[in-house]
Amino acid sequence: MSIFVEVGKNRLLRMSATDFAPYQNLLARTREIALLDSAARLLEWDQETGMPPRAVDWRAEQLAFFGGRTHRLFTSAEVGDWLKACEDQGFGEGTAAATNVAGWRRKYDRATRVPAALVEEFERAKTHARTAWVEARAHADFRRFQPHLETIFVLSRQLADCWGYASDRYDALLEEYEPGARAADLATLFAALRPALLEILGPAMEKSARTPADLLRGEYPEEQQAAFNREIAAACGFDFEAGRIDTTTHPFCTTLAPGDCRLTTRYDRTNFFVSLYGVLHEAGHGMYEQGLDAAAFGTPAGSAASLGVHESQSRLWENLVGRAPEFWERWLPRATHYFPRLAGRTPAELTAAANRVAPTFIRVEADQVTYDLHIILRFEIERALLAGDLAVADVPAAWNAAFERAFGLKVPDDARGCLQDTHWAVGLVGYFPTYTLGNLNAAQLFTQARKERPEIDAGLRAGQYTPLLAWMREKVHRLGQRHLPPQLLTHATGRPTQADDYIATLRARFG
Amino acid sequence: MSIFVEVGKNRLLRMSATDFAPYQNLLARTREIALLDSAARLLEWDQETGMPPRAVDWRAEQLAFFGGRTHRLFTSAEVGDWLKACEDQGFGEGTAAATNVAGWRRKYDRATRVPAALVEEFERAKTHARTAWVEARAHADFRRFQPHLETIFVLSRQLADCWGYASDRYDALLEEYEPGARAADLATLFAALRPALLEILGPAMEKSARTPADLLRGEYPEEQQAAFNREIAAACGFDFEAGRIDTTTHPFCTTLAPGDCRLTTRYDRTNFFVSLYGVLHEAGHGMYEQGLDAAAFGTPAGSAASLGVHESQSRLWENLVGRAPEFWERWLPRATHYFPRLAGRTPAELTAAANRVAPTFIRVEADQVTYDLHIILRFEIERALLAGDLAVADVPAAWNAAFERAFGLKVPDDARGCLQDTHWAVGLVGYFPTYTLGNLNAAQLFTQARKERPEIDAGLRAGQYTPLLAWMREKVHRLGQRHLPPQLLTHATGRPTQADDYIATLRARFG
Repeated sequence: MSIFVEVGKNRLLRMSATDFAPYQNLLARTREIALLDSAARLLEWDQETGMPPRAVDWRAEQLAFFGGRTHRLFTSAEVGDWLKACEDQGFGEGTAAATNVAGWRRKYDRATRVPAALVEEFERAKTHARTAWVEARAHADFRRFQPHLETIFVLSRQLADCWGYASDRYDALLEEYEPGARAADLATLFAALRPALLEILGPAMEKSARTPADLLRGEYPEEQQAAFNREIAAACGFDFEAGRIDTTTHPFCTTLAPGDCRLTTRYDRTNFFVSLYGVLHEAGHGMYEQGLDAAAFGTPAGSAASLGVHESQSRLWENLVGRAPEFWERWLPRATHYFPRLAGRTPAELTAAANRVAPTFIRVEADQVTYDLHIILRFEIERALLAGDLAVADVPAAWNAAFERAFGLKVPDDARGCLQDTHWAVGLVGYFPTYTLGNLNAAQLFTQARKERPEIDAGLRAGQYTPLLAWMREKVHRLGQRHLPPQLLTHATGRPTQADDYIATLRARFG
Repeated sequence: MSIFVEVGKNRLLRMSATDFAPYQNLLARTREIALLDSAARLLEWDQETGMPPRAVDWRAEQLAFFGGRTHRLFTSAEVGDWLKACEDQGFGEGTAAATNVAGWRRKYDRATRVPAALVEEFERAKTHARTAWVEARAHADFRRFQPHLETIFVLSRQLADCWGYASDRYDALLEEYEPGARAADLATLFAALRPALLEILGPAMEKSARTPADLLRGEYPEEQQAAFNREIAAACGFDFEAGRIDTTTHPFCTTLAPGDCRLTTRYDRTNFFVSLYGVLHEAGHGMYEQGLDAAAFGTPAGSAASLGVHESQSRLWENLVGRAPEFWERWLPRATHYFPRLAGRTPAELTAAANRVAPTFIRVEADQVTYDLHIILRFEIERALLAGDLAVADVPAAWNAAFERAFGLKVPDDARGCLQDTHWAVGLVGYFPTYTLGNLNAAQLFTQARKERPEIDAGLRAGQYTPLLAWMREKVHRLGQRHLPPQLLTHATGRPTQADDYIATLRARFG
């Protein structure tokens, strides 16, 4: 039995989607896609964790096959018809059905607006660009990469034009990673953030100079690191009945099923922070995935809101929880249990070591204060490239000038400059800002959570993270894609993403 | 361009299948099946090696989806049409195309002759039977399993009648695991084998009594066992660039791609033979898989000939190579490197320990002499059940009587008798004989190989296994399913499977 409510002249809104055939067809279709897609995720995970080298060709064939099959299943004409029927019908706001139809529509339009020929050309260009980038970086020789980067930006512009945008072409690309975000808003946020970061940087560096870089350097057996990381991740709330941690060169988090979230990390035997903070970061992603509605797996209602929201959860646990003074007050005794060489160290020393600030050329090695300066630099360069205000040939000069302005350091070569990241080479234009959005969202959500629930702070001191995780579950995880990120933040904190909570957090920690 | 040869009145045989559309359609279809199927194998491998517990429901959904999809892809009507067209056309004998068409035909007919309702009923019956068997074995109570075993045999009879047979219903089931084998031939083989085994058993037990069962018992760290096993498997010829070894409760070998063969083993910290001989066994399977034609992956031309041929390769390395005196002459120094506690032991002591003979109630713990007596007993009972000469209710009595006749031991309870194996409970009727065929084939192939190539024996003494592996590659692995097993053995050794080489091998070792 269906229940309808009248929402306007001759217009009935369907309150339940359970017997509406086009919606059920969409559910069945996306379930089939999820079955295939989650198998492809296992193929990828296995490729990173343990696949024998000679398996690579067949694995590539498998992944191409799965990718092509799921693409065709989602972009076929009947999916468009079913979507249209659902939209004509309408579902109650806030229901899973309404969330799904809106999410599928966004994805369907983006996927079907791009001609197959452009998709193929872009795929080929990325393959060549990636190979050229590896070589260019190895030789610190931008010229080898330049023609490929030109192609990537030409095709990215064409993609953006297919996808469409109101006034800023960058928005069309950004939408892929951060639905509802606008470049102009990012520019405003970053304009507030940059001077604050530069202001904090001086005192932070001064403070850090008192802590030697090699304060904790020593021998930390991998098995002991793994056991400590596991204890910490479990304490935070990562469910090992529904996940595991493996070892890879590049750490990541992937979800293979409801109840199957896999984290990876890498180990530095001389520095246990590498794997510990890596695991805290990935476990943050993992707890978001584990908090999604399992029954809605594979649909927008059961998927993360955006990369910028996802990154808020990883940064929360890595930096806001894991590098806070109360973290080491609580966990130093356990760390000493696993690593007896830490005996005699104080929580303050561990905290100081975990919060060292020192500018570096490399983004992925950056500290908390300078990290976002790296992102802002990239955002400005890719925006100028897309707008045609900067030629690809001039990227190294523009990069190096901007870097010197921001960090006061001269970039010694392009390998430590504009060639350091893989993103553009694999076609990810408009992706970088989500890292900084993650930092801002993390601070804003954390600040609000602590304001609403005083037991969170008591929990942080005691190493009891359930109150914090429960708030995130309720305000972020459980909602899936019910709201676009700006609305999600507004629902949770009263306003869309701002820089002030993040700046206040950094000031309190480093100022 | 196609080349035809006249093979009869108005009949042209196509020498090349490269431009024959129905054949190309079949290749494309089976390639799609192989892409899906090899992903399903990874899902299964992962389930055994490391999947988090809460992932189990989705994993079951995935495997059911993949199984249903590949079944439908292979049994659809157009596959039958393409096969018919290929058969009408005909391909040159011994070509991959001829091998494939014959193999597909066997599989297609078997798959399409069984009504979907019977398939489903059998699946359901197996699920219930397996659950009942677990409980019945735990309580050593055959009555709990009896009604399920009755159903399994009723449905197996129906399956056999769908598949068809000349005179013996057992043959229809056997064909599933050992194409071309006949129960009457097995009975003849076993009639020759049994008295010989009983004759060898006496002296073998007497000899074994001189070697204490706990001669090598001690502490063998798992990492050291793994390293030793790896060195041995690599020396035999298992390619670790195209495979790996993981840990599971029940050891197995699975192939995920050309270039990706995964072995598993389990460890007993007090007895390194458990993992060592387990790895030698699985590596034997693995080297067969690695020796198949990679370009024909997923087709009969690139698949193993049968279970009885597969088992010949595992038994070859486990028993004929790995338990021979020259094995420990060569490898004891390396074993002592990994396990210093072996210092002072002699190769003869290791060999004696590896060849202890002592009757046991449990097949999977059986020694080389009594193992096949376990198999013959099962073969006779399942044959009598299928023929209607034995009622399921009378299985325990029949089993216990046969066991006492063969081993001189009274079975204490059904858990150590007719309830010990999972095979019947999961619907595998007609499967057991392939274990003994494996033993016979192993000895026959090994004997022939050493006769033809004297460098094999020199290699066995030196721990250089390339000559032996090269012979197996040429005579067995590379051929895929070009021949049915009896013809494969005839091509390689001059006659189909016989018992005499195996009996001679056991006599030389134990007599």
